[in-house]
Amino acid sequence: MQSFIIRQIRERMPLVHCITNYVTVNDVANVLLAVGARPIMADDPAEAAEITALCAGLCLNIGTLNERTIPSMLAAGKAARALGRPVVLDPVGAGASRLRTETALRIMDEVHPAAVRGNISEIRTLAAGSGRTQGVDAAAADAVTEENLAACADFVRAFAARAGTIVAVTGAIDLVTDGARCYAVRSGRPEMGCVTGTGCQLSSLLTAALAAAPADALAAAAAATALMGVAGEQAWTHMAAHEGNASYRTHIIDAVDGMTDETLAAAMRVTEL
Amino acid sequence: MQSFIIRQIRERMPLVHCITNYVTVNDVANVLLAVGARPIMADDPAEAAEITALCAGLCLNIGTLNERTIPSMLAAGKAARALGRPVVLDPVGAGASRLRTETALRIMDEVHPAAVRGNISEIRTLAAGSGRTQGVDAAAADAVTEENLAACADFVRAFAARAGTIVAVTGAIDLVTDGARCYAVRSGRPEMGCVTGTGCQLSSLLTAALAAAPADALAAAAAATALMGVAGEQAWTHMAAHEGNASYRTHIIDAVDGMTDETLAAAMRVTEL
Amino acid sequence: MQSFIIRQIRERMPLVHCITNYVTVNDVANVLLAVGARPIMADDPAEAAEITALCAGLCLNIGTLNERTIPSMLAAGKAARALGRPVVLDPVGAGASRLRTETALRIMDEVHPAAVRGNISEIRTLAAGSGRTQGVDAAAADAVTEENLAACADFVRAFAARAGTIVAVTGAIDLVTDGARCYAVRSGRPEMGCVTGTGCQLSSLLTAALAAAPADALAAAAAATALMGVAGEQAWTHMAAHEGNASYRTHIIDAVDGMTDETLAAAMRVTEL
Repeated sequence: MQSFIIRQIRERMPLVHCITNYVTVNDVANVLLAVGARPIMADDPAEAAEITALCAGLCLNIGTLNERTIPSMLAAGKAARALGRPVVLDPVGAGASRLRTETALRIMDEVHPAAVRGNISEIRTLAAGSGRTQGVDAAAADAVTEENLAACADFVRAFAARAGTIVAVTGAIDLVTDGARCYAVRSGRPEMGCVTGTGCQLSSLLTAALAAAPADALAAAAAATALMGVAGEQAWTHMAAHEGNASYRTHIIDAVDGMTDETLAAAMRVTEL
Repeated sequence: MQSFIIRQIRERMPLVHCITNYVTVNDVANVLLAVGARPIMADDPAEAAEITALCAGLCLNIGTLNERTIPSMLAAGKAARALGRPVVLDPVGAGASRLRTETALRIMDEVHPAAVRGNISEIRTLAAGSGRTQGVDAAAADAVTEENLAACADFVRAFAARAGTIVAVTGAIDLVTDGARCYAVRSGRPEMGCVTGTGCQLSSLLTAALAAAPADALAAAAAATALMGVAGEQAWTHMAAHEGNASYRTHIIDAVDGMTDETLAAAMRVTEL
Repeated sequence: MQSFIIRQIRERMPLVHCITNYVTVNDVANVLLAVGARPIMADDPAEAAEITALCAGLCLNIGTLNERTIPSMLAAGKAARALGRPVVLDPVGAGASRLRTETALRIMDEVHPAAVRGNISEIRTLAAGSGRTQGVDAAAADAVTEENLAACADFVRAFAARAGTIVAVTGAIDLVTDGARCYAVRSGRPEMGCVTGTGCQLSSLLTAALAAAPADALAAAAAATALMGVAGEQAWTHMAAHEGNASYRTHIIDAVDGMTDETLAAAMRVTEL
């Protein structure tokens, strides 16, 4: 897979509207700046749709959703779709509470996001919530491994096809599919799970990628997923002996800042299934 | 005092629900990951109690409380107590506004937290608000020092006994008591006060400790308090000449990430009064 | 221009109330601690004015404004003015949505802040919104450069005189004026624009400076503006080859922490126009 995603983002400098959680919002803003996009955060219903109309893409992250921001997400999402701008949904914690599950499903139904990124459990919740029987769901185990890769890919591909969206499932192995083609991304390190927000950051990078390279959205999504993983790998090489997850957090965003399409291409491990 | 608190947390990996301020929430999430716990933030009344029910402990921090999150704190707090899960209250700024004082007192009265962590001024506000005469309060000075240590310990111990909770007062010398036994913790550095959120981080570590080691809650609380102090000391040894409070912030969380019970035991200065 | 602003802040240790966005709030808190001030964040209408009354200054930043915090900003702003405490407005995104523009204008009209800090586009929006004809507005280009410096200075000076406030326009060249005198600050680096929140941080430093040195508010504002720029320059000298915007973020706050009036005076490039 050849990709010029970073050059495309840096040339177009897409303005990305994020309605996102307050835990990792600073990292999301800085990683968007690192990749060459421009972040704007606005979550009040009185301005959400208006801000979205200025932007090239919208990232909806339900990590700290509340009664005020849920209508903002729906209004901004519909506005973005009406304007043909990509919307990415990060269904953080879908399955953990009724509010999260229902909100994520409402966004799926009413906004029809261009892409959804979550862990396998969150994606499984969305798939189950669609109200159809899921033959492959029960068969797919809880984490994507080399052993259950084919079954997981079948499940995710089927869900993406049914939902009409790109789905990126991240974990030890990432799967990125539009329901037809499916990429497996084996870049990244397990220690990324000890830094809060690497998933949120990836969701924002996906938004920037889809905004900058809409012509082949699936390839853009796979490249953005690989970018986050390779950044995690490069960042790890800069860890001093006394450093831990807080330094790793900084190194990861730094690595995105320093990334080029060439270094990404040389390092990423992406295969089409 | 012998402690295996870090091993206990890393083995049980408690899920810790935080309803906390948006100033230091990212550090709270990363320090919980550093110690081996797993953070989840959720502050809307529509899901707060439901999320708490999934968790091993609950940390309530009123640093940026508002009309929406106060009911969430009360609902989650009551749910946690009903399930026997430890609740830790960080009464940030109690005494600075009526809203903070009244909210902190309501949480004390309606939730009965397992532990409260604050500076001496915040704890004094809670003690005064209980509506009883405080013979020792006036006698205890505004900061805990070697000179007034006995008087302060008497005051804090009496408040803890009356409130039926563990109280951790942090400052130049930390006091941790359940109303009967009282530990003085002399670990830490004054420069930690120039990093926003070290107190918030400690409150979240206390929650993880109580969740992972309920059998001797006071020892767990004292060990968590010492852990934060020792992390501050170790972090300081990694400060380069040009580094300041922002780097110190990172080094402190890194130090928690790298801490073991053995290094903690060798470094911590904890005495029983 | 001779300045002792850092000493003044570190001696008076002003408590600064910030009603600010949740994207960069942690950096705002840490940069206030770095400069020697003390931050407090509180944004609920039930306590905003009460907290302001305890503080030496108030920083209003509309970066993530919402229906709950707008009344808090107005109430706190009026309370601060009634008490003679400086209020600084950061009109983040004014012009991007009706809500932002109208809120910023309401704060200008109802609070009469002591200082306003924004980029040229935000300041232009405020100037246009005042409802008067702006002869110089159309003439001034979109960014302050050496070529249009005189025209920009005329525009900003006229707006500051009309609004009765100090205006700090930041960009490649910063302009700081009270409507009479006007300083150009040429400190800083373009890479600061790749770190989210350097503007927000400056607005909080301005608040601390005005609170600590009210006798010559314009000089204090110019010195604070230069401080942020020089911190950005010093921080850049500490960037290792693999570091990017996330490390730069940390280095900048560290540089404020280590700054003295002497190093600031030796490095800052401030001229009176």
